Amino acid sequence: MEFVTIDDIRAAADRVRDAVVRTPLIPAGWADPDRPLWIKPENLQPIGAFKIRGAFNALGRLDEPVRARGVVSYSSGNHAQAVAYAAAAFGVPAHIVMPEETPSIKIDATRAYGAEVVICGPGQREKVADEVVAQTGGVLVPPFDHPDIIAGQGTIGLEIARDLPEVENVLVPVSGGGLASGIGTAIKALCPDARVYGVEPELAADTAEGMSLGHRVDWPVEDRNRTIADGLRSQPSELTFAHLEKVLDGMITVSEEQIRAAVRELAFKAHLVAEPSGATALAGYRLGSVPPGRTVVVLSGGNVNRELLLEILGSPA
Amino acid sequence: MEFVTIDDIRAAADRVRDAVVRTPLIPAGWADPDRPLWIKPENLQPIGAFKIRGAFNALGRLDEPVRARGVVSYSSGNHAQAVAYAAAAFGVPAHIVMPEETPSIKIDATRAYGAEVVICGPGQREKVADEVVAQTGGVLVPPFDHPDIIAGQGTIGLEIARDLPEVENVLVPVSGGGLASGIGTAIKALCPDARVYGVEPELAADTAEGMSLGHRVDWPVEDRNRTIADGLRSQPSELTFAHLEKVLDGMITVSEEQIRAAVRELAFKAHLVAEPSGATALAGYRLGSVPPGRTVVVLSGGNVNRELLLEILGSPA
Repeated sequence: MEFVTIDDIRAAADRVRDAVVRTPLIPAGWADPDRPLWIKPENLQPIGAFKIRGAFNALGRLDEPVRARGVVSYSSGNHAQAVAYAAAAFGVPAHIVMPEETPSIKIDATRAYGAEVVICGPGQREKVADEVVAQTGGVLVPPFDHPDIIAGQGTIGLEIARDLPEVENVLVPVSGGGLASGIGTAIKALCPDARVYGVEPELAADTAEGMSLGHRVDWPVEDRNRTIADGLRSQPSELTFAHLEKVLDGMITVSEEQIRAAVRELAFKAHLVAEPSGATALAGYRLGSVPPGRTVVVLSGGNVNRELLLEILGSPA
Repeated sequence: MEFVTIDDIRAAADRVRDAVVRTPLIPAGWADPDRPLWIKPENLQPIGAFKIRGAFNALGRLDEPVRARGVVSYSSGNHAQAVAYAAAAFGVPAHIVMPEETPSIKIDATRAYGAEVVICGPGQREKVADEVVAQTGGVLVPPFDHPDIIAGQGTIGLEIARDLPEVENVLVPVSGGGLASGIGTAIKALCPDARVYGVEPELAADTAEGMSLGHRVDWPVEDRNRTIADGLRSQPSELTFAHLEKVLDGMITVSEEQIRAAVRELAFKAHLVAEPSGATALAGYRLGSVPPGRTVVVLSGGNVNRELLLEILGSPA
């Protein structure tokens, strides 16, 4: 297996620089004094999530005549918007396959960037995307199972290492694993003493189970779809699982209520709107189980339906 | 009258660099295409507002034996937290005079930073602060009526000019006028073709009236207290009014409902929690009256009571 390298991530950083926001680390002064906390607010990216990094890197790497045929992707949401946004920036057509349970805010946003959205049933997204590729001749841009995507997401790790070289813990949400693979690769290269943890909902903890068993496992999609964290319902590929085994120091699982509490903490204390998936790393920090030390949590995205946000924020703390 | 200079602001930037977050400009892709929009999210500062810049600059400028006697300030909220936070960082005591109508979130936060809070009646804050200075021997750090405060807030303008040198419009909320004085001074020095506008609630539009008359005017504090934007209920001093006359291209006034709509836009589109005062510049942008061109709005703070935030976010768009 070919692993993504720090040089791949550095090259990706050059490629995405003009398209992404250089997010700062936000100090969370109210956090546990033993674990001084910083938040990496990727909800402030143009599409409201980190996915723009991988999408721009993947599209930027394509030869121009290939890219001109258009791109195809599948996603529960934020990657869809990212590919749609990047395709519009490059001036090429995009077809995006989205499962029917995707929040409407993400479907609408994807269409707003000019992409054609194809709705599919649960667990059908890869298959339908392959059909669209066959029909259109476009290039498939997968949401996580590709070295260019991993390298693009890894640019977050470069920025963390640049802004806080003495970081000791980095917590990253895990779904398909592209984000944690990329960030972990960058952190282990640049801050070799730092620990990197993946965080999952208990209701979609296939990676935690797979890591403890030493091989990836499949959870039924109906099970994974139970979590409120709709961005964390995928599971790693062979490629990302191998990266996670190499770069993660452990997996942390959190309950639905812990995720909701983290959404409230981010809104009321950090002044940041997070989607449940985006708050999951903070929920992991709040368990208090990572070793003491300077800690960064990655807030991966902020695309939450208005009704759900109001329900979560209005619940008792 | 001595005006703050760009060199004062550059010196302030060196002084506050390690204490403040280097906030990025967040592109608002959903905005009016004729007026491409960026948000300067000062709600992400450690105390949730830009006021930390002026406070650190003012305390940093004091001679150490003077600073050791402690500091005294008065504020409707965010400056209180800023002085309390800066005093704690410098290890000196702080007394903060706060009017009784201040939101409890701001009083609690000020106490949490270790400051002693003195509650006063409407319009009494300067007088009570003078009494505390007489009692304690501390140094008064006013919320806006001081060159060091203006220079500290002006560091935001330096950053805007660095990140978007081709900026054409900058919109800044106006209360006591320290923020707009500082940002306007920096922008006019570095981007002389850019226009700088102050934005006020209609219910506290003393500066708009004063600018049109050519001299500052006093509005009764009961009138100014009607606006939901509790951070915009002060009015300029002679010092800040003179700066505003020099650096502003105009004043814009907005309704209470326009401010509320801007709070909703920031939460649901930009993933940022703003207090009403913090959303006021965006409300001014939404009027569509500034000339076409690349526009920056300053989101000045995010300290809003949970109940009020839920009420605003839950109202129909």
